[in-house]
Amino acid sequence: MKVIRTIDELRSELADGRSSGRGPVGFIPTMGYLHEGHGSLMELARKQSGTVVVSIFVNPIQFGPGEDFETYPRDEQRDLSFAKSKGVDIVFLPSVNEMYPQPTKTKVSVSELTSLLCGASRPGHFDGVTTVVNKLFNIVKPDFAYFGMKDAQQVAVIEQMVRDLNLDVKIVPCPIVREADGLALSSRNVYLNDEERMQALVLSKSLQDAVDGMHKGILTTAGEVREQLTSAISKAPLADIDYTEILQFPDLVSIPDDAELETIENAIILALAVKFGETRLIDNILFQPKAGA
Amino acid sequence: MKVIRTIDELRSELADGRSSGRGPVGFIPTMGYLHEGHGSLMELARKQSGTVVVSIFVNPIQFGPGEDFETYPRDEQRDLSFAKSKGVDIVFLPSVNEMYPQPTKTKVSVSELTSLLCGASRPGHFDGVTTVVNKLFNIVKPDFAYFGMKDAQQVAVIEQMVRDLNLDVKIVPCPIVREADGLALSSRNVYLNDEERMQALVLSKSLQDAVDGMHKGILTTAGEVREQLTSAISKAPLADIDYTEILQFPDLVSIPDDAELETIENAIILALAVKFGETRLIDNILFQPKAGA
Repeated sequence: MKVIRTIDELRSELADGRSSGRGPVGFIPTMGYLHEGHGSLMELARKQSGTVVVSIFVNPIQFGPGEDFETYPRDEQRDLSFAKSKGVDIVFLPSVNEMYPQPTKTKVSVSELTSLLCGASRPGHFDGVTTVVNKLFNIVKPDFAYFGMKDAQQVAVIEQMVRDLNLDVKIVPCPIVREADGLALSSRNVYLNDEERMQALVLSKSLQDAVDGMHKGILTTAGEVREQLTSAISKAPLADIDYTEILQFPDLVSIPDDAELETIENAIILALAVKFGETRLIDNILFQPKAGA
Repeated sequence: MKVIRTIDELRSELADGRSSGRGPVGFIPTMGYLHEGHGSLMELARKQSGTVVVSIFVNPIQFGPGEDFETYPRDEQRDLSFAKSKGVDIVFLPSVNEMYPQPTKTKVSVSELTSLLCGASRPGHFDGVTTVVNKLFNIVKPDFAYFGMKDAQQVAVIEQMVRDLNLDVKIVPCPIVREADGLALSSRNVYLNDEERMQALVLSKSLQDAVDGMHKGILTTAGEVREQLTSAISKAPLADIDYTEILQFPDLVSIPDDAELETIENAIILALAVKFGETRLIDNILFQPKAGA
């Protein structure tokens, strides 16, 4: 496994791979502090690609003022061992100065899809994400790029960018990986104390209960689902709700409270963002109302 | 010469070229109604590249309301003969629907450099330019891309985008091509009636006179240059000045009126935008104050 820190060296290494016919390039952009969620992306990339590239870069421009850019967990040595154990070929570990030698004047932004959910609570966040992912795509030129569905809105936004800008890469969304008790894996879980960790289970549980309720025909409208999610999460005393939403996916169009879910043709996403202490967690679940009815 | 109208066909043709070792791809994005300005770019691309691709696409999203998108001159047959005569390999002629099957939600925008000159009079124009050029770069994946210096601000903006987004393409700026009497070639010159065409000569002449004045030490400050340009152009009764500017190039930083030009280390650009009747013309000239002193 090669560890590369400069854009020039990465380009030259990838060009060598292309000219010697190493097959498609699979790419997993991450912010590091890798866990089995990232691991599942690497395993799939390993199956589908000749060269697997993982980038580890905590991207300053996707953090707002007062967010956790400085304290975001980092552990380079552990990450490198983890990537190696998953059969990764190249880890790209650029410095902030390598990615932004000057403050960027160029932004890639996606409208509409970014105005709600995490985009509403984190203004500018998705511009930072699409800009850095665009840069990384231009550097790596992957054939496939793998993203976890825990950040479902991010997947929708990046797929929109790829389509609109004719980027020649196939986005591969991968299922959420959870702890045995249901908590979605996240690098930020390390922030949680024991009590917060326990109460955070309400996220996955409330989502699963809502989907069960829809399957059983107990919850039939979007308003009932919202109410049920909010009331279930509110039972956790430390939970501070940012949003509990039900939307069409991947276009992220809102569903009115009185809409009968079984009339909706598209996939539906239930999505949550909840703070426990200083830690903001997100989770979601996809649901096919037609298939589920 | 191949004429290609779909993205898929173009990608497949270019992939064939790459796999059969046809050498670098040189790309000239245009809005058609080709003239010898475009021709000079094609000739240079022909010398430097294995495959020369010209796109002809009047890009709706770079035109503002009330601008000339509908009436922009188009002549496909003449353009194809012209490109063929210059040794072009592929002309890419997409429809608006091919480039924008849905209205784009994704924009690529460059700040600061786009807030002045044509960016100030044409709000949103450069977002449209950078977005479509980014799309075209993603489709064509050129090694070299050629742009005329008549649109000097466009060159500066696109170079900024390429740097900021790590696009793997070398931008090649090419000198302005002029008629024998000095008028800069432009597809929009066709709009001019005889009287406007004659008076429009004041653009190139005032620029050349100002540079002569600087060389001779008659014009020593930025304010004197602005004043001289404005007064020279105002002598043409049909001229309606949008701007007469003097800036550093390529960062497009303004130069205060009282600044002594010989103290400036960077290149300087004198840039004009002037309407004659309904036709807005631009012209510019670059100047190295140190070399010129």
